[in-house]
Amino acid sequence: MNHQDLIQKLAVCAAACEHCMDSCLSEDNVQHMVACIKTDRDCAKICQLTASFVASGSRHAQHLIKECIEICNECAAECEKHDHDHCKQCAKACRECVEACKSYQTAQV
Amino acid sequence: MNHQDLIQKLAVCAAACEHCMDSCLSEDNVQHMVACIKTDRDCAKICQLTASFVASGSRHAQHLIKECIEICNECAAECEKHDHDHCKQCAKACRECVEACKSYQTAQV
Amino acid sequence: MNHQDLIQKLAVCAAACEHCMDSCLSEDNVQHMVACIKTDRDCAKICQLTASFVASGSRHAQHLIKECIEICNECAAECEKHDHDHCKQCAKACRECVEACKSYQTAQV
Amino acid sequence: MNHQDLIQKLAVCAAACEHCMDSCLSEDNVQHMVACIKTDRDCAKICQLTASFVASGSRHAQHLIKECIEICNECAAECEKHDHDHCKQCAKACRECVEACKSYQTAQV
Repeated sequence: MNHQDLIQKLAVCAAACEHCMDSCLSEDNVQHMVACIKTDRDCAKICQLTASFVASGSRHAQHLIKECIEICNECAAECEKHDHDHCKQCAKACRECVEACKSYQTAQV
Repeated sequence: MNHQDLIQKLAVCAAACEHCMDSCLSEDNVQHMVACIKTDRDCAKICQLTASFVASGSRHAQHLIKECIEICNECAAECEKHDHDHCKQCAKACRECVEACKSYQTAQV
Repeated sequence: MNHQDLIQKLAVCAAACEHCMDSCLSEDNVQHMVACIKTDRDCAKICQLTASFVASGSRHAQHLIKECIEICNECAAECEKHDHDHCKQCAKACRECVEACKSYQTAQV
Repeated sequence: MNHQDLIQKLAVCAAACEHCMDSCLSEDNVQHMVACIKTDRDCAKICQLTASFVASGSRHAQHLIKECIEICNECAAECEKHDHDHCKQCAKACRECVEACKSYQTAQV
């Protein structure tokens, strides 16, 4: 897992979370999607920041990757509770992002 | 040009800018790279925000795309003054991002 | 209006928007707050980025201030439709942010 | 230490880092300021994100506060090596931000 592949997975995940969050707000039963909206919000932010730290070669990137894995896992678990396409796509992007983060962590040791 | 392709170009450009900025700071003649560092800094930020607005379906996305084109063009012109690989790659990413933004603008009209 | 006062108003507005958005998601009638949530989301982002551009002395700060005024005005107008305390506080922060942006624009000419 | 005071300290610190970074790039001896520029860059980003998580009431705010303390401490230590006014101001903002983060951590337990 190199820098660029990780950054791409992080960017795809951030975009999937932003899209899922916005789509949840257009669902008939918004009330039911509140937890999903909140975790999408947090996950989009941490993925964006992590991508920024990795791309800039910051020595704090590893700490953010660790936090990113935690939030992505939580977001995937929440999205997997719902049948909407945007939730399924978001869960998939989160899971792939977690895998990319873990591969990158291993490669850097 | 659909949403996802544009978002990908914006993410690649943001990452190229962050990498170029960091690499400029490691060049022997940092003084010579100051203008490049500053435009990389601005370009990374506007690309990240524009991607975020586009991904979330915001109705203000078009305004940010317009500003993004301007800053990307400026960043490309600055990077093209230098022979470093990271500058060349960043200039290329900025030019491709501008093209993607323009195609997206046309497609939305 | 100097740099630091403007940055402070932008930061207060960004935080008010984030808080309003989160509080809207906890209201009994979330459906009724969807437009408010979306404009809070956009307004928080543009205020954060504008603060970042102003603080870093970027020559693109003025363009972002212009966009920031537009989104803050829209967010204030939306929040003023609602009686929740968080909406009232957010509307107030948006209005003060617009005033700060305009004073800063005038001072820079 | 309440939410709003912490957010204000984070915003002041982020702005001080952005200003210090930009001012370092205008110093005669930029080469000498490279480490300061890089830590300013990281510190501005983590303070902005932490403020965003705290303001939105995210349950991940505490993790980011922990990381924020670490990067702020590092940034303060680097800035304290230099005599420039912007470095001194940035170091002061970082130290105050660390204190605010720690008070907030204690208050939340």
